[in-house]
Amino acid sequence: ELFNAAVVIVSSSCFSHTSEDRTGPVIADYLESRDWNTTIDIVDDDKAMIQELVRRLTADTATAPNLIVLSGGTGFTKKDVTPEAVKPLFDKEAPGIVHAMLSHSFGITPYAICSRPVAGVLNETLIVTIPGSPKGATENLDAIIDKLKHILNQLRVDSARELHK
Amino acid sequence: ELFNAAVVIVSSSCFSHTSEDRTGPVIADYLESRDWNTTIDIVDDDKAMIQELVRRLTADTATAPNLIVLSGGTGFTKKDVTPEAVKPLFDKEAPGIVHAMLSHSFGITPYAICSRPVAGVLNETLIVTIPGSPKGATENLDAIIDKLKHILNQLRVDSARELHK
Amino acid sequence: ELFNAAVVIVSSSCFSHTSEDRTGPVIADYLESRDWNTTIDIVDDDKAMIQELVRRLTADTATAPNLIVLSGGTGFTKKDVTPEAVKPLFDKEAPGIVHAMLSHSFGITPYAICSRPVAGVLNETLIVTIPGSPKGATENLDAIIDKLKHILNQLRVDSARELHK
Ligand code: NA
Repeated sequence: ELFNAAVVIVSSSCFSHTSEDRTGPVIADYLESRDWNTTIDIVDDDKAMIQELVRRLTADTATAPNLIVLSGGTGFTKKDVTPEAVKPLFDKEAPGIVHAMLSHSFGITPYAICSRPVAGVLNETLIVTIPGSPKGATENLDAIIDKLKHILNQLRVDSARELHK
Repeated sequence: ELFNAAVVIVSSSCFSHTSEDRTGPVIADYLESRDWNTTIDIVDDDKAMIQELVRRLTADTATAPNLIVLSGGTGFTKKDVTPEAVKPLFDKEAPGIVHAMLSHSFGITPYAICSRPVAGVLNETLIVTIPGSPKGATENLDAIIDKLKHILNQLRVDSARELHK
Repeated sequence: ELFNAAVVIVSSSCFSHTSEDRTGPVIADYLESRDWNTTIDIVDDDKAMIQELVRRLTADTATAPNLIVLSGGTGFTKKDVTPEAVKPLFDKEAPGIVHAMLSHSFGITPYAICSRPVAGVLNETLIVTIPGSPKGATENLDAIIDKLKHILNQLRVDSARELHK
């Protein structure tokens, strides 16, 4: 079975076309080579605009992606608001995903203390934030990608019993 | 000194007697072999019912258990609401316990990304969520059980100075 | 460039002068030997008083410290309220810092399950809680201190692009 991922690039400079987005295509290639159907959206680093996009993507469970990956806006500058935008939208938090990404990142660099990942569920969609750089983005996906489908299957059912029928 | 643990099995199928609970007795044996007094409750996987039970168990500090272990309802299906039920009740969160359980789980399986543990304090009772399977439940308890009594002693006093008199 | 740190000792006994604070000078020496300008404040372990002090220290970004380190009140007794006082003040959370401190602590002792660190940003100041003992305090700072300045530089700018000019 193919799963659908929406890649959301959070960046005012990309959104306003003053710079080119290099990370979106890297993430899309990364996911497509692992058999995910992938779309790319670009959104300004504005809390309300990020929330509006995430709500719109997830509103109709028949067409919503299984996974939304938001890249960028996860640092400590004033424009970094991605975690603050998406965390209040979660029906459920996913601390195991956060732990996996942080532990993996600390295995690569002590500057993982600058990471601010959040992960959770809205309706039937899993949402994960990753860094804006191609290197940071793929390193964080490496930490979780092979195990995500087990979670995505759970999101669509009432209880685990349905998965074992 | 003996400590008291209330094991709460969260499961609609056990609550409605359509299936037998295997995990409750495993957790009770696990705790009793380590000198805990243990009771078992079963509750439906309903947020309000879980909250009502936890509030009732902890309301009177003279009779409240030192520890409540909720097993089940910690996954990603629609009926998994245990973390969302108990986290809003906490007076204090216990991120060290969550970190210990997640780190221990990742030492066993990368599918620990599916874990959603929460831990915290309500009144004088420590509350921890663990998986619904006997294997997942005992693995998570292994990560913390030997060190919990230090926390439980703190919960009943005004300040650490009283413990060192 | 020199950074400024405000060390806040949270302790009713120190605040009321019934005991001497040993940890404040240890933390100040620790930071000053690493080229931080350091001040020490002492506050009662009272949620409202802690919040009032933190708000006052951070209100004017022209004079606010780059870092506030709150030591003490992070355990499980009734007077331990430091995490609960500061977490609601955060504009941004810093889970990478929390993960670094917990992982480092678990490398030293399994009693790290008793740790309840929080870390985040208010205005242009990074705020971190650490234990009240000199040993616990310095161990937690060891986990993060060499990498903090990268975060502090980000706090004062609109976007990362300004840092790379
Ligand atoms: Na770890």
